[in-house]
Amino acid sequence: MSLLVVGSVAFDSVKTPFGEVAEALGGSATFFSTSASYFTKVSLVAVVGSDFPEKHILLLKGRGIDLKGLQKVEGKTFRWKGEYGFALNEAKTLDTQLNVFQTFKPEIPDSYRDSKVVFLANIDPDLQSDVLDQVKNPLWVGCDTMNYWIEGKRASLLKILKRVDLLMINDGEARQLSGESNLVAAAAGIHAMGPRILIIKRGEYGALMFNGKSVFAAPAFPLEKIFDPTGAGDSFAGGVMGYLSRHEKFSDSQLRKAIIYGSVMASYNVESFSLDRIKNLTEDEIISRYRKFKELTHFEAMEALDE
Amino acid sequence: MSLLVVGSVAFDSVKTPFGEVAEALGGSATFFSTSASYFTKVSLVAVVGSDFPEKHILLLKGRGIDLKGLQKVEGKTFRWKGEYGFALNEAKTLDTQLNVFQTFKPEIPDSYRDSKVVFLANIDPDLQSDVLDQVKNPLWVGCDTMNYWIEGKRASLLKILKRVDLLMINDGEARQLSGESNLVAAAAGIHAMGPRILIIKRGEYGALMFNGKSVFAAPAFPLEKIFDPTGAGDSFAGGVMGYLSRHEKFSDSQLRKAIIYGSVMASYNVESFSLDRIKNLTEDEIISRYRKFKELTHFEAMEALDE
Repeated sequence: MSLLVVGSVAFDSVKTPFGEVAEALGGSATFFSTSASYFTKVSLVAVVGSDFPEKHILLLKGRGIDLKGLQKVEGKTFRWKGEYGFALNEAKTLDTQLNVFQTFKPEIPDSYRDSKVVFLANIDPDLQSDVLDQVKNPLWVGCDTMNYWIEGKRASLLKILKRVDLLMINDGEARQLSGESNLVAAAAGIHAMGPRILIIKRGEYGALMFNGKSVFAAPAFPLEKIFDPTGAGDSFAGGVMGYLSRHEKFSDSQLRKAIIYGSVMASYNVESFSLDRIKNLTEDEIISRYRKFKELTHFEAMEALDE
Repeated sequence: MSLLVVGSVAFDSVKTPFGEVAEALGGSATFFSTSASYFTKVSLVAVVGSDFPEKHILLLKGRGIDLKGLQKVEGKTFRWKGEYGFALNEAKTLDTQLNVFQTFKPEIPDSYRDSKVVFLANIDPDLQSDVLDQVKNPLWVGCDTMNYWIEGKRASLLKILKRVDLLMINDGEARQLSGESNLVAAAAGIHAMGPRILIIKRGEYGALMFNGKSVFAAPAFPLEKIFDPTGAGDSFAGGVMGYLSRHEKFSDSQLRKAIIYGSVMASYNVESFSLDRIKNLTEDEIISRYRKFKELTHFEAMEALDE
């Protein structure tokens, strides 16, 4: 089924202990759609400025992503500048220029209105609601958010969460949203807000999934070289949603597979700046790393202590 | 095979958001030996003061732990006082009174000198060497340490590490010991110091094992109530070493099982203060949680993206 994503397309300037890059292609919708494109047909809704180069359009089109929903308006594209220390776990934001993103009103093209699966990347929850109002009859909806909206637009966020099936946020955000420090308790609180599935992203520690019936823990892939973590969460979300979008309904087992695919995509994403690694993956590379996740986590069942 | 452990026996005064306890039985060797006692015969080497009550002796003896190596000397038992906030991830030490532990010289009883497996809990690396000198011909040796020794007694620590097969430390200690921020690189550095197996404890995030051939990631068990994390690392180590001590040599597969048993024991330990939960576990409880770890981490293998 076709997957609609609304989010940001941006220029990222990133410095890590291993190098730096200026005004490289980034943004939540960019990482998400590129990652998801390995699994399903993706339609993108976002805005860029008149400075957005044709080569980036070609890259996304080359991944089969439908760009009818990508508005190009007068002005400059959203820019973000950040830096990571050796721990690589958190970016220090040096500069944010919203530019054309500041007045972004998502418009869903007619051909997108039948989308069956929608992912609302991290944008103003009022805009997330606007998007969902424009989609006729989605089968299920995924959503991301951040501390800024949890704190500043809580009512709007709670409103959209009632319409969300799958929420993907990090552990700090889950604690902030629920007011619970314990993640099991936080998950119960968040289920009560609407989302029946909660995926908690924990960066280098992997992800935890709660669906009210079972809990699943996936590690992050231990890489010798983590080059740039920018976009890891969005690439993860793209893999999860992309794989799940193949299914009208999905089982617990498919959800777990999806989280591993998301982890595979995130692990490739952090191996280089921007989309450099995930723009040209082969199916073999994806399957091969999926198998490595199996090796990483496998242990034998046990029937009795005497074995 | 019999497992010899040398470490601390202490009185812990602990405050968590869920309650507090004064001068409860604690110490690395106490948690370790109680946990390991579910898997193998344990011999303990430690020191306590004249204030150490008979009921604690009976508790440990009740678990089948050999206490011939527990010296009782004039003076007060080692005391530690700490407090945890809601995050429960790190204790704030309020007071440490080494007391009789300050002049502790481990003496290995004759009947322990044939021990085939030794675990050197977190004590002065010079004492760890003294202990190992007194054991005739151990098949393999496990070891723990901490930032204090990595910083202050590096030469002594590097000396004992050459004689260690399995090192269990936390992620911060692994980074400090190796000088590498990336854990894969840290593991390679630590292997070169001697230990062929490195288990990195990550608290609420579980554990990572590196043995030069494969990497294994185990999550921590997501509990709704974590009552008191004190002793979790030592209970984990006790489960790992206890299970492995059943084997003269162990395979990668047995090492992975051992880490899950360690995780099971740690997950029970944090459900209450002191040894309250792990002093009376049944085999069924251990096996049942082991199975829950399987449910927590299981996902299906994948042959092709089209599935």
